[in-house]
Amino acid sequence: MGSYNVEPTVTKNPLNPEEFRRQAHLVVDFLADYYSNIEKYPVCSQVEPGYLTKTMPESAPLQPEPIETILQDVHKHIIPGITHWQSPGFFGYFQSNGSTGNFLGEMLLTGFNTVGFNWLASPAATELEMVVMEWLLKLLQLPKSFSFCSDGGGVIHGSTCESFVCTLIAAREKKLNKFGTKRDDLGKFVVYCSDQTHFSLQKACQVVGINPDNVRSIETKKCMNFRLSNDALSSVIESDVRAGLIPLYACLTIGTTPTTAVDPLITLTDVAKRFDIWVHVDAAYAGSACICPEFRHFLDGIEGVNSFSFNPHKWFLTTLDCCCLWVRDRNDLTRGLSTNPELLKNKASDDKEVVDYKDWQIALSRRFRAMKLWMVIRTYGVTGLQDVIRKHVNLAKRFESLLVADNRFEVVVPRNFATVCFRIISPLALATRVSSDNGEDDSNRLTRTLLESLNGSGLVYMTHAVIDGIYVIRVAIGATLVEETHVNMLWDMVQEHVSDLLAKYVHII
Amino acid sequence: MGSYNVEPTVTKNPLNPEEFRRQAHLVVDFLADYYSNIEKYPVCSQVEPGYLTKTMPESAPLQPEPIETILQDVHKHIIPGITHWQSPGFFGYFQSNGSTGNFLGEMLLTGFNTVGFNWLASPAATELEMVVMEWLLKLLQLPKSFSFCSDGGGVIHGSTCESFVCTLIAAREKKLNKFGTKRDDLGKFVVYCSDQTHFSLQKACQVVGINPDNVRSIETKKCMNFRLSNDALSSVIESDVRAGLIPLYACLTIGTTPTTAVDPLITLTDVAKRFDIWVHVDAAYAGSACICPEFRHFLDGIEGVNSFSFNPHKWFLTTLDCCCLWVRDRNDLTRGLSTNPELLKNKASDDKEVVDYKDWQIALSRRFRAMKLWMVIRTYGVTGLQDVIRKHVNLAKRFESLLVADNRFEVVVPRNFATVCFRIISPLALATRVSSDNGEDDSNRLTRTLLESLNGSGLVYMTHAVIDGIYVIRVAIGATLVEETHVNMLWDMVQEHVSDLLAKYVHII
Repeated sequence: MGSYNVEPTVTKNPLNPEEFRRQAHLVVDFLADYYSNIEKYPVCSQVEPGYLTKTMPESAPLQPEPIETILQDVHKHIIPGITHWQSPGFFGYFQSNGSTGNFLGEMLLTGFNTVGFNWLASPAATELEMVVMEWLLKLLQLPKSFSFCSDGGGVIHGSTCESFVCTLIAAREKKLNKFGTKRDDLGKFVVYCSDQTHFSLQKACQVVGINPDNVRSIETKKCMNFRLSNDALSSVIESDVRAGLIPLYACLTIGTTPTTAVDPLITLTDVAKRFDIWVHVDAAYAGSACICPEFRHFLDGIEGVNSFSFNPHKWFLTTLDCCCLWVRDRNDLTRGLSTNPELLKNKASDDKEVVDYKDWQIALSRRFRAMKLWMVIRTYGVTGLQDVIRKHVNLAKRFESLLVADNRFEVVVPRNFATVCFRIISPLALATRVSSDNGEDDSNRLTRTLLESLNGSGLVYMTHAVIDGIYVIRVAIGATLVEETHVNMLWDMVQEHVSDLLAKYVHII
Repeated sequence: MGSYNVEPTVTKNPLNPEEFRRQAHLVVDFLADYYSNIEKYPVCSQVEPGYLTKTMPESAPLQPEPIETILQDVHKHIIPGITHWQSPGFFGYFQSNGSTGNFLGEMLLTGFNTVGFNWLASPAATELEMVVMEWLLKLLQLPKSFSFCSDGGGVIHGSTCESFVCTLIAAREKKLNKFGTKRDDLGKFVVYCSDQTHFSLQKACQVVGINPDNVRSIETKKCMNFRLSNDALSSVIESDVRAGLIPLYACLTIGTTPTTAVDPLITLTDVAKRFDIWVHVDAAYAGSACICPEFRHFLDGIEGVNSFSFNPHKWFLTTLDCCCLWVRDRNDLTRGLSTNPELLKNKASDDKEVVDYKDWQIALSRRFRAMKLWMVIRTYGVTGLQDVIRKHVNLAKRFESLLVADNRFEVVVPRNFATVCFRIISPLALATRVSSDNGEDDSNRLTRTLLESLNGSGLVYMTHAVIDGIYVIRVAIGATLVEETHVNMLWDMVQEHVSDLLAKYVHII
């Protein structure tokens, strides 16, 4: 590998402002054109595993290459391998919807590239984050106890999983600290959730060393719309207590990933309180909707919880990574996450005049993420953000009503937000008007085939869930560019594909 | 808060391509001008705690605001609160040096905003990461066992702390799995490092539930240039084993944060091997230098370790967040971090044809970080990147030689890379030619005062370390825009300020 040992070449400074200006303008136009043409690309990438590794050179290039060449390669090699999350035909997983305001914020935060581990390292980064988190607290009508004006506070994490990890540590250290639980008892701690809770919780438990056998994934039922029942929760906790285990933490969800189910906070937090359990509310997807007064009721009972998080990087016109977490007592969070090395000692921190966000998260370093959230909120305003939510909800309502009016389909759970879960009712089940095992299996098989056939078109992309044994297609309406015409197109396609499918089916039976 | 409940307004789509184009061009010019003018701003922000919270409105704006207004506010309110990490006068902490190539990569990855948790969710994101990690593996001459072609592989994390957490989990689960250690024995696991190791390791241990009493921070000495000694390591481990504890993990550092010390890998890994300890090498800062053949010897012995990480977001023209981690056995890493939820099931994953990076990190979601690293490597080429490293090292060499030639200063540890640690020798110590306690204290006090006085000028910014009781000024030379003229300016300032300081000092005694 001695070939890397070559003579230095004379080049411009890599941050030469005029070269920066020239090249960045090129990429702006590249991306504006990408958005203009985005509907021409298959939504889900059609490449085969290994497509890029086969194409790319095996070693890094020795010499600099011009931006024009690199952009040609992006077009030729990268774009075909991208699943276009910003496409209006993207209805998969949950959306991660970007926006111009967000993009400008990302440009600025990347351009400044401050490393805001503590206040001193870049005061604006810390203070803007505090400002934005207080704005959002008011917008979501979160309890005042979550505010910096009280004992609480908010922080921007990279992901819900990070918020799980940090609040699990907070709960663990609080229990160890307050109740004199011994560190040897760590193996007795138990965490509660439902079988609809995001699987990141399981992973977060694994990260912080909770015994995997002590994560209770409590069964939910279709008749309860997949909400966690307080009776079920109580009885599981009681049985653990009888077994000498220590209830530690419960995760409740507003808008679960499979079906956007909403766990009832009021009754469940009552149960948790009886056993002195830390309650975290994960509203990753649906939290954004709660800025509209007509959806705020889904957060009723939030006063009774210890922490709350939602992801602007899903449905708040903000790109990855941006998860907002609030806690009722910031000391709970910082107890387990603080460090105080000599290297970072400074007067403002020593005097406790400032927030040092390194003590609110896993990593030391942190990007200036508040910048993009601040840009989004100012660029669109509260009314603009509410408009976006309402537009998507109305599109989902319309799509749901079309499904309901067509007896070949079942909307499997009532829609709460802008995600619709549906399936085909198999003609066999329809004919016998009972949900026989065969009918069920046929419905699952047909629905899976429909999903594959729709996604195969390249015009749309959706994903699936299996709930209570039922295979459903999830239609998450929330890409920024989605308009009524795209939902109409989706409905036309669904009808066309299902007709073909059922024609073949009838032919077979 | 009913005031948020207002009628929808009609606005353009938040990703309208022409509006995107217009506004993004504005911000490109804003940032190019920022870089042109960066030397006009005080390097370290001079604001007081609370400066921004006092200025900003208490609630989010109801109506959209034009980008021109927002950019004015960035200029007026944000820039004064920024510590300018991209300024050529920034010599603090370790640099985080951005570049045009990196910026273009960040633009593209933000613009595409793919959420690449698994291969299918955006194949290009996964495959480009694999390509780039193999390029870097070759460039750093890492062992072939770390390659995807063998049992290893590389992944981009957000921070070194995340790499610590994930490799600690890998070590823990391997121990539990392979040796049948019981989960009840978790409290017996011990982690080893030196008193120079980055404090993030302590935090990572706390995160994964290692007993804080079981993290051994082994003392280093000035006479050993603050390198971890294998005798010290052996004897601490032996004593733990005798006490019935279980040695788990050791972190060795190439380029420690206080002084850029280099732990000797060859002898230390021999010790670790005897006790079957997972060895992680943290080369966060100095790893980048090892792409130059003349620095590669610092990695000698890397064949004997389990995992290795370095941060392109320090000294590789790449902005936050970007930490590259390689492991010798990818199954070790994924054993403790894998999840397999129904929602993400797909043929490519089921057939094990692809890498699903969600199983290599803490979070599920991940940004397309490979894009910026790929852009950096192609834009500058290997030779361009080596040039940057060598330029900074040569500037540091020059600064060191100026200090050495001036008997008022001591270079406290020999410079390994581009960071120089120096202090004032107090005239008292100089006069008596012994390092009396008084002389030591005076040196510390004088050096601290010098640092405060230099930073107070606003023209430069440096930070400090305390090693073996000695207070040193750290000069980390590595901002992208730094040129010889800035280092000359720094030297002129140091001489001027120290002359003033010593004049006062002599006056006092």
